[in-house]
Amino acid sequence: MAKPPVSSATRTFGERVRECRHELGVSQETLAACAGLHWTFVSQAERGLRNISLHNLLKLSAGLQVDPARLVTGLEPPES
Amino acid sequence: MAKPPVSSATRTFGERVRECRHELGVSQETLAACAGLHWTFVSQAERGLRNISLHNLLKLSAGLQVDPARLVTGLEPPES
Repeated sequence: MAKPPVSSATRTFGERVRECRHELGVSQETLAACAGLHWTFVSQAERGLRNISLHNLLKLSAGLQVDPARLVTGLEPPES
Repeated sequence: MAKPPVSSATRTFGERVRECRHELGVSQETLAACAGLHWTFVSQAERGLRNISLHNLLKLSAGLQVDPARLVTGLEPPES
């Protein structure tokens, strides 16, 4: 059974990463290589399984050739 | 001697947190209370000493009453 996303924020973030990747027309492996990340990290981030760090967020947005703002705009903090 | 920021991205991020906090006219303690974070975390984030997580980024932006996009737009990934 697939693991649930960590939060609605990481889920939405992951959906946006996937959307941008599809717009770019590249695989998770290619994005990972461009971003300097492991492809399993990209896969987990897209499934909302990662409470990603600022640096990795910036590596992903650079690899996706989008402003980091696009990946986080409007996201709400998790209910802590 | 003050510790140097982790990266230029965390330095700029911290400067933006401080700028937004000043615009709001609140102390680090008040921001921390609103964001559900410890005030030392806010202090360290403002000095660029934290490679902050997505959840803490969203807690800070909520506490600052700004869209998270404002805190990360245009930031570049660190030279890894």
